[in-house]
Amino acid sequence: MTLFVGLSAFPITPMTPAGEVIAPDLRRLVERLEAGGADSVGLLGSTGTYMFLSRDERRRAVATAVGAVTSTPVIAGVGAMRTDEAQTFARDAAGEGAAGLLLAPVSYTPLTEEEVFQHFLAVASATDLPLCIYSNPGTTNFTFRSSFVARLAAIPTIAAIKLPLPASRDVAADLADFRRAAPGLSIGYSGDWGCKDAMLAGADCWYSVAGGLFPQQAADLTAAAMRGDHEEAERCDAVFAELWKLFRKVGSLRLMYAAANMLELTDAQLPKPLLGLEQGLRERLVSALPV
Amino acid sequence: MTLFVGLSAFPITPMTPAGEVIAPDLRRLVERLEAGGADSVGLLGSTGTYMFLSRDERRRAVATAVGAVTSTPVIAGVGAMRTDEAQTFARDAAGEGAAGLLLAPVSYTPLTEEEVFQHFLAVASATDLPLCIYSNPGTTNFTFRSSFVARLAAIPTIAAIKLPLPASRDVAADLADFRRAAPGLSIGYSGDWGCKDAMLAGADCWYSVAGGLFPQQAADLTAAAMRGDHEEAERCDAVFAELWKLFRKVGSLRLMYAAANMLELTDAQLPKPLLGLEQGLRERLVSALPV
Repeated sequence: MTLFVGLSAFPITPMTPAGEVIAPDLRRLVERLEAGGADSVGLLGSTGTYMFLSRDERRRAVATAVGAVTSTPVIAGVGAMRTDEAQTFARDAAGEGAAGLLLAPVSYTPLTEEEVFQHFLAVASATDLPLCIYSNPGTTNFTFRSSFVARLAAIPTIAAIKLPLPASRDVAADLADFRRAAPGLSIGYSGDWGCKDAMLAGADCWYSVAGGLFPQQAADLTAAAMRGDHEEAERCDAVFAELWKLFRKVGSLRLMYAAANMLELTDAQLPKPLLGLEQGLRERLVSALPV
Repeated sequence: MTLFVGLSAFPITPMTPAGEVIAPDLRRLVERLEAGGADSVGLLGSTGTYMFLSRDERRRAVATAVGAVTSTPVIAGVGAMRTDEAQTFARDAAGEGAAGLLLAPVSYTPLTEEEVFQHFLAVASATDLPLCIYSNPGTTNFTFRSSFVARLAAIPTIAAIKLPLPASRDVAADLADFRRAAPGLSIGYSGDWGCKDAMLAGADCWYSVAGGLFPQQAADLTAAAMRGDHEEAERCDAVFAELWKLFRKVGSLRLMYAAANMLELTDAQLPKPLLGLEQGLRERLVSALPV
């Protein structure tokens, strides 16, 4: 259960225009996460553009990341349209040495709760690895109610949930709701701009996009929040203030690619149809980086 | 341009649990569409579960459908997460004899208008086939504004748009808006329960789910509406009244699979994670079939 605790940092997955993982660049990014103090590497999350990668390339990405760390565990996203595909990706990730799995209910046709339950049961049962439920209504059109999460939490390998910031903005109430529903589950949040508050409220894990490039600053924030040091947490969060504004304005993915290019960590571009950041935003990004 | 006129009937794509197209069953379904008077076969639409099929299986589906018709054109869905994949599917479909293409802006990360434009430009330019824009905000999280459609309509091979029923419920006003924006474009609708009104209002094409199993009844409705015979159109639409209620209640896809099983046209089940219809709905469906 310590796997889904603290800072889980999500790197981009640098790839060629043809969709091949650029292993040296990914290695460099993952090494940076371990050096910066991330508690886990959140590989192949939405930031890692997992839905744009083939089976072979996902496997290569996991192998590369596992090979790049000495002790930091790698959590691998295994979401897919088909249940059998997601099971295959889970087995592949286990075979390559991932420490845990992350699963979103990816869909084209919106899914019912029973369909999501059977899907999670099938994928969680495909390996012995602990699995984190990935709630991302903005991309999957599926909302996890706390009563439904209670049902999922009874599946033996399901160990955690990664929640979006609540629409109510009251993350403490949201956390309390899920804690009541699923007492043994690790509960963490994504949506970087609200994660200071989530961690101060007692969340277990920060699933962080910015942490995928700026692990040290994110680890400092995580540590301060987890020991209940409000003042220091605010100070650490303030470093990211301009970046959070941009995240909320245009989404984090395109910004992280541009930032990785600026930091000369990779020349990789987003997979098409995704396009890079327009020039005006690039200029704003330069002065928003927490460096 | 007559390709995207009249009744475009969308069959399911029967497949094995492992995702292989069951060619004899697909052939039977497509033959039924031609015999029933469909103006085109809308292969690999949402009803055809295209996002659950591999490249090879999509190609086999197109080849099977094209081989099953004598004169009815086959429109093939080519949507994919990656632009290069969608281009490949478009070329494959052209190579197998499809007469036109259908493209939705499938995404995981929500797309910007510029990203959708570049994606459509790339896929529309990959072949000489006329292409129909597939607007399906419920699955793609992207809404086509009429001003944006005007921009897309300038791409030489873009010939049509398949619209959802408008939230306003005023399909005549919606149609007029898109006509003004893109005068040369074929404008059609999906959302079977509102398509009588759309066709009576002067839409060019009914992209029909129910027509994929009940082409004759749908063709009768289409013909009556296109010649402006309100009374006969109402009579033809009334045959479907109970089915439309179920479509609106639980979505059409699971119902069409159950109906195809009931009619003994195929034993195929939906690809997991999608599940079949529960027993109570099955019983309601039996009495809702327009037979």
